[in-house]
Amino acid sequence: MNPLPHALPHGALSLSSLDERLLQPGLKGLPIDAPLRQGAIGVQLAPHGKTTMSPQLFGAQLANGAWGVTLANARQTQVAHRFGVRRVLIANQLVARSDVRAVLRLLHGDPDFECVVLADSLAGVARLAEEVAAQGLTRALPVLVELGLSGQRAGCRTEEEALTVARALAGAPGLALAGFEGYEGLIASGDHAADVQAVARFIDRLCALTLEADDEGLFETPEILVSAGGSSYFDLVARGLGKLHGLSKPLRPILRSGCYLTSDHGIYQRDLAKLDAREGRPAGQGLQPALEIWSVVQSRPEPGLAILTMGKRDASHDAGLPAPLLFHTPGPGAPKSLPAGCTIVKMNDQHAYLRLPEGDPIDAVLAVGDLVGCGISHPCTTFDRWPLLLAVDDDYVVRFGVNTFF
Amino acid sequence: MNPLPHALPHGALSLSSLDERLLQPGLKGLPIDAPLRQGAIGVQLAPHGKTTMSPQLFGAQLANGAWGVTLANARQTQVAHRFGVRRVLIANQLVARSDVRAVLRLLHGDPDFECVVLADSLAGVARLAEEVAAQGLTRALPVLVELGLSGQRAGCRTEEEALTVARALAGAPGLALAGFEGYEGLIASGDHAADVQAVARFIDRLCALTLEADDEGLFETPEILVSAGGSSYFDLVARGLGKLHGLSKPLRPILRSGCYLTSDHGIYQRDLAKLDAREGRPAGQGLQPALEIWSVVQSRPEPGLAILTMGKRDASHDAGLPAPLLFHTPGPGAPKSLPAGCTIVKMNDQHAYLRLPEGDPIDAVLAVGDLVGCGISHPCTTFDRWPLLLAVDDDYVVRFGVNTFF
Repeated sequence: MNPLPHALPHGALSLSSLDERLLQPGLKGLPIDAPLRQGAIGVQLAPHGKTTMSPQLFGAQLANGAWGVTLANARQTQVAHRFGVRRVLIANQLVARSDVRAVLRLLHGDPDFECVVLADSLAGVARLAEEVAAQGLTRALPVLVELGLSGQRAGCRTEEEALTVARALAGAPGLALAGFEGYEGLIASGDHAADVQAVARFIDRLCALTLEADDEGLFETPEILVSAGGSSYFDLVARGLGKLHGLSKPLRPILRSGCYLTSDHGIYQRDLAKLDAREGRPAGQGLQPALEIWSVVQSRPEPGLAILTMGKRDASHDAGLPAPLLFHTPGPGAPKSLPAGCTIVKMNDQHAYLRLPEGDPIDAVLAVGDLVGCGISHPCTTFDRWPLLLAVDDDYVVRFGVNTFF
Repeated sequence: MNPLPHALPHGALSLSSLDERLLQPGLKGLPIDAPLRQGAIGVQLAPHGKTTMSPQLFGAQLANGAWGVTLANARQTQVAHRFGVRRVLIANQLVARSDVRAVLRLLHGDPDFECVVLADSLAGVARLAEEVAAQGLTRALPVLVELGLSGQRAGCRTEEEALTVARALAGAPGLALAGFEGYEGLIASGDHAADVQAVARFIDRLCALTLEADDEGLFETPEILVSAGGSSYFDLVARGLGKLHGLSKPLRPILRSGCYLTSDHGIYQRDLAKLDAREGRPAGQGLQPALEIWSVVQSRPEPGLAILTMGKRDASHDAGLPAPLLFHTPGPGAPKSLPAGCTIVKMNDQHAYLRLPEGDPIDAVLAVGDLVGCGISHPCTTFDRWPLLLAVDDDYVVRFGVNTFF
């Protein structure tokens, strides 16, 4: 086994040299070119890079046709730009002056770099306008107005508020209203049918807002960008945005799904099952869970319990505990499936508590020093634990490394 | 304001050059020399380094008289050794052969390096013995037998099991039984009085076990090491270990508290209040909450709600959400206290939802771009989010940086 043929030190990384490796067939769980294929459902993808913060994965996503990379803040944008990403959608309002300046500096110094940002208030517009004027940027900064959900995160709560911000942008020197944005992923009441309706309504509102702003002639960019879409409802978003017709300029509908890339064995697996059910077909096809965390059985202190060398510092725990999948005694042979009923019941900082089903033969088999492979729930909060992830093939041979920069 | 006078690149760090700065008075929240002062309560401290994984803080702890540094695994031990730590207690059984070898290599290559490890099974003892024999270590590896709690983490469940492992260690070439270890911090039933009794009983069991092994003449080291003690019950542990008399060799009682260093505004603040109550005096004196996370108000989308640029990726959320404390409009002047009733009600990956009390003037004051300072609950899962923490004085002037290596 080649332990780490393609681990790359920070600074020696180029996107182009890596794409080829990421695109080779047979690599476990990088279904990059399968989902959301360009044009297949009429939208484009600017995958949310905050999920992985991995330049190699950004490179593979772009090489597979992603329109750009979505990021959450100025720092992430600096990292992506440093590694060659040239089109970024920052899906947040930038408000710290140092953050605004950091992004403007990238735009000022690199004519090939494009960046779209958000605003949801007149205060936010004023702040952007001041900094753009101070920086003397020769290009107008494209800005999307964020439409939000009552009681939820950022974003204008009403169409009237959103139009007020849009008008301010249209009137602000150095800024250009480029479109509208929203995030439907916060809709999660627990009632799936109600959530599906709420998502559809929200996307309809986004579309209606876009038409209204277009009627007022507010858009100042060659095309109108409308963006929504996480990894749970992208079908509904694509369908909703697909109904947006009659604009005076070309529409650029952009999904921002991030977790689609690796999916998971938890929340997103469940959300994809719901997606398949409501679409009446395997619409989430290709979105296989790709992240596994392997740890060692550190102790078998009592029957039915194994303590693993994996803790909150290694695996997400904010959307459910890891799912034990496989075990392996170091040596030849392939990992074996753990029986149903094996459950991680608790994690400390550095340990996981694996309960084994009572009376199952696994209790006599699983030994100190064995390896256990777990799936996770919520990729974002696992990726950020690993500066280096190893990509393996179906035989668990390490094929290359994936760096993250959190 | 001097932004970062003492930020040190990885590799340019030496413990001795940093101690002086960390020991200067007036630095906010590094009460290193106050608690658990050498000898004052008859025990010594090997603070759990997994909390901070910061060489500068290890250096300050050692300079203030810590006996050594406790760590959770081989990798953390490699980091600590790299930065000059010369006495480590690994408070876990090492079972992966690569981990055992990594630690043995450090011992083999550095005669000044001391390391004590744990075992809780005959399988664990056999594995250590095999690797020690293969490595040809000229010193015996000191090992503590771990006593555990039924249904909890690692460790022998009964005294008989523990003595069996102890006898195996005493008989294993290359290994030396050095003492016993346990971790009482897992006792947290919610009934404080019952927990206090359970902790005392557990420490009594540890002491009885030590006496029994000594009666059998099993200890092979010049002194007998007995260790327990997290940051919640260290008074009870110290008191319990203080009753251990009549051994044939000198006793080395070691606490392993890690979170005491910064404490917090959550679980440990509550545990220290309980400690003060049961001791009838301010026994946790000096353990002031020292960790704050500052973020920016990104949006004020509706009355009573502020969205902050701080999320699960910035602050612990496994033992309660952050506690909003202070706010500040960038510019001159000191941060002001937030009124009671301000609460972080939710966090996403990159955002926090700050609810403001209804009708409070703060709702009209707190603006987009303002800074908000929050305390946290559970230092371990906050430290590991920050490769660099800034240490500030009471005027919030940055005095130096503290690196972490997770």
